[in-house]
Amino acid sequence: MNDAAPLTSPAASLTVDLGSRAYEILIGPGLLTETGRRLAQLLPGARAMIVTDKNVGKQHLETVVQSLRKAGGDPAVLVLPAGERTKSFGHLEETVNAILAAKLERGDAVIALGGGVVGDLTGFASGIARRGMQFIQLPTSLLAQVDSSVGGKTGINTVLGKNLAGVFHQPAIVIADTAVLDTLPAREFRAGYAEIVKYGLIDRPDFFDWLEANREAVFAGGDERVHAIAESCRAKADVVRRDEFEAGERALLNLGHTFGHALEAATGFDASRIVHGEGVAIGMVLAHRFSARMNLASPDDADRVSRHLAVAGLPVSLADIPGGLPPADALLGFIAQDKKVTRGALTFILTRGIGQAFVAHDVPPSEVLAFLQENHPG
Amino acid sequence: MNDAAPLTSPAASLTVDLGSRAYEILIGPGLLTETGRRLAQLLPGARAMIVTDKNVGKQHLETVVQSLRKAGGDPAVLVLPAGERTKSFGHLEETVNAILAAKLERGDAVIALGGGVVGDLTGFASGIARRGMQFIQLPTSLLAQVDSSVGGKTGINTVLGKNLAGVFHQPAIVIADTAVLDTLPAREFRAGYAEIVKYGLIDRPDFFDWLEANREAVFAGGDERVHAIAESCRAKADVVRRDEFEAGERALLNLGHTFGHALEAATGFDASRIVHGEGVAIGMVLAHRFSARMNLASPDDADRVSRHLAVAGLPVSLADIPGGLPPADALLGFIAQDKKVTRGALTFILTRGIGQAFVAHDVPPSEVLAFLQENHPG
Repeated sequence: MNDAAPLTSPAASLTVDLGSRAYEILIGPGLLTETGRRLAQLLPGARAMIVTDKNVGKQHLETVVQSLRKAGGDPAVLVLPAGERTKSFGHLEETVNAILAAKLERGDAVIALGGGVVGDLTGFASGIARRGMQFIQLPTSLLAQVDSSVGGKTGINTVLGKNLAGVFHQPAIVIADTAVLDTLPAREFRAGYAEIVKYGLIDRPDFFDWLEANREAVFAGGDERVHAIAESCRAKADVVRRDEFEAGERALLNLGHTFGHALEAATGFDASRIVHGEGVAIGMVLAHRFSARMNLASPDDADRVSRHLAVAGLPVSLADIPGGLPPADALLGFIAQDKKVTRGALTFILTRGIGQAFVAHDVPPSEVLAFLQENHPG
Repeated sequence: MNDAAPLTSPAASLTVDLGSRAYEILIGPGLLTETGRRLAQLLPGARAMIVTDKNVGKQHLETVVQSLRKAGGDPAVLVLPAGERTKSFGHLEETVNAILAAKLERGDAVIALGGGVVGDLTGFASGIARRGMQFIQLPTSLLAQVDSSVGGKTGINTVLGKNLAGVFHQPAIVIADTAVLDTLPAREFRAGYAEIVKYGLIDRPDFFDWLEANREAVFAGGDERVHAIAESCRAKADVVRRDEFEAGERALLNLGHTFGHALEAATGFDASRIVHGEGVAIGMVLAHRFSARMNLASPDDADRVSRHLAVAGLPVSLADIPGGLPPADALLGFIAQDKKVTRGALTFILTRGIGQAFVAHDVPPSEVLAFLQENHPG
């Protein structure tokens, strides 16, 4: 691209309205090549460091570095190992030290180029280095584009559980290049799609209808994919705007996650068995089935959700998890360990139907146990 | 004390007015024994963990534990090694894991019992565990009571410099028991006194006059000590309220600190040579002398500041530092490495006279070098 050319309008964009922490999300194919000029426009004179992982780095680092250089920058680069284990205190310290060693100051930019792992870790490091640097998200996975890059939650895993240390640190801008999704493995794209479906199930029944009609086009790419990503970001931004620091309503975003996290934990976080988005897919179906069992919603809605996720190639029941599961009471134990447990009572996101999710406190553990026993394949 | 007795009014109290993050500072002798009931009043039903260090723990941990137990609590306890090296990523991880292992949830309380090291580390850990727990400060050093416990800055040291990683995390309450200061070594009390003097020098000339008249009474304890601490907290709270996230004016609190930090670094952070408050004392005198040299202020004011700090037993010139110093150009190097350097220019807090400090950007390094050469004892 030509340096003198005007910036193209992205295919879609939205503003996450958080007052003094408001920021824009740009969505569309080819946006990575414009990173340098977008940054120069947003933070004139700022220096930059790019944090990525080995896999994403191989594919996209050069594009971003060249874009920053064309705009007059000379970014520092940190390449981390790929994978969930990178979200550790050790790599947090490494990243903070790299930011400081690059002599970045408070107004300078720390850029996360990658999926959720790179985004969560880099966001955390940029939130604590010098007590807060400018943070730029370049999400390269579907999951990161529709979930991790919106909302300001950053974090790492601890020996006592996932995502248990972190800060709320909003990015200065999110640039989601939808063309990079063409290089994702099919299974990873599907897993991200589960989170897109989630936004329809929480409070956008029309969006769920639209997904039923347009799923194949979203998978194929093009305008429908951009629309699905933009609508997901808009849905999440609406929830986050109303509850930035997760005092209440934001918990709705955990639809499918309480069951999902428990299944991830019960399978030892072994990605060959289930990945996060697959756990969420099963979890959303279970949340609908459990709601039906509690006479809150129609079982037809649970069937409809299950059909849509299954036709998208996602697992939808405990029996779909390869390799067997611990017994129902052990699964309940994993649920009780989840961080959404408040003062001993079980908190779940339940639903009155598609697009009618709500936060249910004091769900009786005995009901959950009976439900798991009924649905257990073993 | 009797459980049923009403809470006594503290000798002094003030509110740090930060909107939704507003909190109270209670100041007076004997307040540690009331910790449990204050906590129960502020956060009913909250569980608690106390973080302290070996030295402070020996003297005051039992008092606080008993107070919490009397109020119906059963606090977890973490005792860390004493000293600046505790402000590390390793101890941060240890503290976060201890909070999680104690199964504290978001509304529960992490209590820092100690000086600046314990307060800075514990505040940071409580700011990132579960993305933010309730944080209670029980400062036990004079420096912590008048400085570290007000303003929400938390942090640890990194291999690239002190306090370069942290978050802004305001406490829910600060309880400053002035009786515990009776057990401080005299040198540590003097070092804390330097920070009290600082508030007079920034923008409270009447307070500086009062300190000149009441210094001995402040050192002796009693009402004057409480007044000096309360007035210092009030002064700092006023600055923080106007600039919580250090975008501008809050830099005034660094009066004496640019020179002071450089002297601490130049002496290898060797507490047998100078401690932080002593570096600040020398730094404040140098800031006044440098301001006089730049024809901004009268040299009489610098002499008056120097006299007051010297009669309090504090060092006031480069010659007062035992063991010799690197040459002037090396000292300038330490100043340039300080984090208050913005985009290559030197930023100093200078003054137009006592109580008239201001933030000076673009101070010429050549003038600072010449000044250091003139004042160098070697």
